[in-house]
Amino acid sequence: MQNSFDQKKLSILAEIESPQDDLSPKGSIDVLCLPIIKLINSHPGMVTTSSCSGRISVFLEGTKSHNNEVKVGGKGQGGRWLFASHDQDNVVGWFDRLIHGQLDEKIALSESKVDDISIFDGMTRYVLYKYEPFILHVKCRDSEVASKLYNTAMSCGFRESGIGSNNLVAIRINIKLDVPIGYLDESDDSLGLFVTEQYISLLDKMTLTKFSDNAKKMNQLYNKIESDIINQNIDTLSNGKDHIETFEERRQRKMKEGLERQRKLKELNQ
Amino acid sequence: MQNSFDQKKLSILAEIESPQDDLSPKGSIDVLCLPIIKLINSHPGMVTTSSCSGRISVFLEGTKSHNNEVKVGGKGQGGRWLFASHDQDNVVGWFDRLIHGQLDEKIALSESKVDDISIFDGMTRYVLYKYEPFILHVKCRDSEVASKLYNTAMSCGFRESGIGSNNLVAIRINIKLDVPIGYLDESDDSLGLFVTEQYISLLDKMTLTKFSDNAKKMNQLYNKIESDIINQNIDTLSNGKDHIETFEERRQRKMKEGLERQRKLKELNQ
Repeated sequence: MQNSFDQKKLSILAEIESPQDDLSPKGSIDVLCLPIIKLINSHPGMVTTSSCSGRISVFLEGTKSHNNEVKVGGKGQGGRWLFASHDQDNVVGWFDRLIHGQLDEKIALSESKVDDISIFDGMTRYVLYKYEPFILHVKCRDSEVASKLYNTAMSCGFRESGIGSNNLVAIRINIKLDVPIGYLDESDDSLGLFVTEQYISLLDKMTLTKFSDNAKKMNQLYNKIESDIINQNIDTLSNGKDHIETFEERRQRKMKEGLERQRKLKELNQ
Repeated sequence: MQNSFDQKKLSILAEIESPQDDLSPKGSIDVLCLPIIKLINSHPGMVTTSSCSGRISVFLEGTKSHNNEVKVGGKGQGGRWLFASHDQDNVVGWFDRLIHGQLDEKIALSESKVDDISIFDGMTRYVLYKYEPFILHVKCRDSEVASKLYNTAMSCGFRESGIGSNNLVAIRINIKLDVPIGYLDESDDSLGLFVTEQYISLLDKMTLTKFSDNAKKMNQLYNKIESDIINQNIDTLSNGKDHIETFEERRQRKMKEGLERQRKLKELNQ
């Protein structure tokens, strides 16, 4: 009989394998997350439950109530993304595409120059430019596995990680941009810019650096999970708890596993 | 005999009470944190280990190495704060004070206009304007208390909270600004601005809103911890595990406790 962790893991894996859209806004797992998701799910005590590989977004805040009691995070009524992408190839040029109607939404630039900041108050609907880094949630079988994963993530710089309820580990890092670039001019629903278009190009450039820093950290995390959790686990499983595999034993085992994979592949191709 | 949690708690409380500077850069606990710290430490199963009530800061990145292998977070060699404050009264006017030498450090504005963004690359030492919200670390006696505190924090919007090693709970919320406002012009060590001074005033105004949103959330957290953890605990302690105190019993007890405090105070004053 299966315990509840195994049942949950099976159903999550089935969903990941399914060709249908998942429940996320984007409808599928970010390609950059696939290797680490696959790695983690290869461990009998872990299963990934949600992920984002990192993204750029431009968000228009919603209408705010008169007592300025807006939900922190500033969503409000009618807040919406003017642009969002997980793909660094979409970063450069997003602003041109937005004002020329090449995105889902076209928004005109406001003629009004921002030379009187006193017009802005709690009611202003700001436009925010954001970069948000990789985030991953992993459900673990027990608190021992959760602690191990948490410590591994912390040890390679994912300093905002934490264990939540029911051994659900959130892996987070602080690589961010959070920049107000303009506001909605409600007189004609246009975008009033606080900054120059050159500044926006500079943000794009900085965002590409963030994408690359983020990818490096994901890679580092992958290697650390592989060496400290997955291989440890394989060694334990294949050799019994008290025996630590030597370098030579490991080399032999890896070679054998490789040959076995080749053989299976050959069978499939015939 | 005391267990290790009680020993640690005693020594932390002694340090908090001590008139000497603590080990934080600022040397003391932020005034705004004191009520919630006192509340949490009144519980026998929790002790606060570090805190920040929220702050504005302006950071000059350090020198970067030629292969752009800068530590994520961008500190590098010689990175330093041009300005930092936990006090919202210091927000407005920081920029004038910086360029007029009324802060620890005076920095001149660069004459060079930013009209060619191609000069910026991985080597540029950016100046970053940041708002960072309240953060609190609480060491808990056991995983039951840690889970209770974690769930309480999550339930009032501290969505980036997490439990770390040894039942250390980090309480975090996402109220942030992270804005590149300029760079160090290394030809004469001056500050080249990417944005207008008006934009900086606007950031200051938005920062005041962040300070206020942050204070509201801290208040909400205080009330929730008081009602869901501290009072629950008092009820349990004073009435035994199986008895839930009625409203009238609680009113009576509170009155009695109040009279007792008054009597002690009177004694002390005589």
